[in-house]
Amino acid sequence: MTARDSKSIELTILSDEANEIAEALQHKLADNNDFVGPDGRPRLTLKKVTHRPEEVDAGTVEVMLADPDLASRIIDKCSALIWCQSTWAGNAPLLNANKNDYILTGLKGIFGKLMREYVFAYLLGHARNVKAFEQHQRAEQPIWEASKRMPLNGQTLGIAGLGSIGQALIPVAQAFGMKVVGLTRSGQAVKGAHTVYTPDTIEAFAKACDHVVNLMPDTPSTQNLLSHEFFNGLKPHSVFINAGRGSAVDDDALLQALDSGALAHAVLDVFRNEPLDPAHPFWRHPRISVTAHTAAESQPSDVADVFLENALRHINGESLNYQFDFAKGY
Amino acid sequence: MTARDSKSIELTILSDEANEIAEALQHKLADNNDFVGPDGRPRLTLKKVTHRPEEVDAGTVEVMLADPDLASRIIDKCSALIWCQSTWAGNAPLLNANKNDYILTGLKGIFGKLMREYVFAYLLGHARNVKAFEQHQRAEQPIWEASKRMPLNGQTLGIAGLGSIGQALIPVAQAFGMKVVGLTRSGQAVKGAHTVYTPDTIEAFAKACDHVVNLMPDTPSTQNLLSHEFFNGLKPHSVFINAGRGSAVDDDALLQALDSGALAHAVLDVFRNEPLDPAHPFWRHPRISVTAHTAAESQPSDVADVFLENALRHINGESLNYQFDFAKGY
Repeated sequence: MTARDSKSIELTILSDEANEIAEALQHKLADNNDFVGPDGRPRLTLKKVTHRPEEVDAGTVEVMLADPDLASRIIDKCSALIWCQSTWAGNAPLLNANKNDYILTGLKGIFGKLMREYVFAYLLGHARNVKAFEQHQRAEQPIWEASKRMPLNGQTLGIAGLGSIGQALIPVAQAFGMKVVGLTRSGQAVKGAHTVYTPDTIEAFAKACDHVVNLMPDTPSTQNLLSHEFFNGLKPHSVFINAGRGSAVDDDALLQALDSGALAHAVLDVFRNEPLDPAHPFWRHPRISVTAHTAAESQPSDVADVFLENALRHINGESLNYQFDFAKGY
Repeated sequence: MTARDSKSIELTILSDEANEIAEALQHKLADNNDFVGPDGRPRLTLKKVTHRPEEVDAGTVEVMLADPDLASRIIDKCSALIWCQSTWAGNAPLLNANKNDYILTGLKGIFGKLMREYVFAYLLGHARNVKAFEQHQRAEQPIWEASKRMPLNGQTLGIAGLGSIGQALIPVAQAFGMKVVGLTRSGQAVKGAHTVYTPDTIEAFAKACDHVVNLMPDTPSTQNLLSHEFFNGLKPHSVFINAGRGSAVDDDALLQALDSGALAHAVLDVFRNEPLDPAHPFWRHPRISVTAHTAAESQPSDVADVFLENALRHINGESLNYQFDFAKGY
């Protein structure tokens, strides 16, 4: 390997969003001296930007930033491949392929940052009654008037599911003066959570909370876990946010609880069937906000950030973040 | 003074929101053992709850929680008064009265907590494009689709005015992964602010920011400080929030900057004339959100919190928070 080889990357981007990712990369590189070599030459250049696997020069590609479903179609022919940075968190298509003599890294470390903005956008929008002020502004004669508000400060946020994403909410809740309690399978203590409940004590969990965010994964034990007992334990001012999995929520129990005033509002990002059926009552319910499974959806800029951080580690000969283990399959 | 006298408060509430404050107090007292004496008797009882000064028994009232404009009408007759907790931050009506042989405490320590929720409700609502999802949901046929979003994480928040309220925003901004820069008269360093600019370098301040919140007081040097030079230094994705004083903003410069795309959106809580004239173009501008000088407006629950904290100090013989000095007038 020559000095130049060890210090630079010729990148192939293979993704349905290849152009957007390339644009984000170039924008970020413009401000970043780390990718300018001592000779003034760029240490990262774009070799190919495409959404078509057949356009990749499989025989020579060394570094690839790729959607794993697209990459899996050519991966076995990529004989020179050193490193593939995936644009997904999960990587089944590549982990199931035969080739495993390269470094595969996932898209991680960003979902908590996205999720905390989603959750607090909706909690604060409700707390500050943003909708009422918008209605006042749109009224035929604009209305100058305070609207009912209820500060998050001093309230309790319940987080069902305290993995890395759930834990990312804790410092933000604390910065707003909220107390945090959790619900997990084990009930083990988590730093920053005042109490951690288990499915056996879910009613006590609901009663302890002003607002609840569900971030639990889809497992047999979480199916329909959020049902009558849970929703009826909430408070008339409570907001319930589901950004975990749709299967955790008993849809009818949620609708009944909203209609009986057991909670104030639901914000739903995930559903049993997606996209959500246009005829599903969630769409038209006045106290439900629907988003399109986008709470922690990464954007090209996020992909660029994760890639660039790893690219710098690659150039500097450091070990890469978020590596997959082909033997373990995760 | 008997033991009982030293350990309990008979409270008179004199306020336009007397009933709401009393209700908040009673709600909070129900959960609070600090106000139950060793003999099981309450250490805080309500003697009178009214919005009419003439209903207060001026000759015997010792502790009063009061709107200062109402209290000023009877204050000179309150010969037994020990302590008055005001429901306002400023207290001109009482500071200008003759009587000054009692402890007057203001409503403080809560505005930063309210302001940070207001500011981030609007910043996050914009970042997550909450309006677009609402429109998708209200469409004739509901639309399942991601909307353009731009995370706050990694962006820079500019805070013009770094007093106690401005500083209260810093830990929240940092919890969201934002960098903070400031603008103050002195330019002196403030903990948590990466750089502090002065009015002389306001263009550099604008250019350093993704979003800006104005919290500057109304002084001769802040009049029209936010004009063409400032607004045109912002970015096409910038949100500008004015929750300081309306006089700081050159209204025409803001409208021109919005119309030319120099910034994305303005959120305005304060205006040169309030209430905002129904004919003012701010009301109908598609990229302006108007609120009714309510960003940090205290609510009965806040008044109850500040009072209870001081009441406990009073009962325990400790010095009270937020005392005014009659000689200094603040």
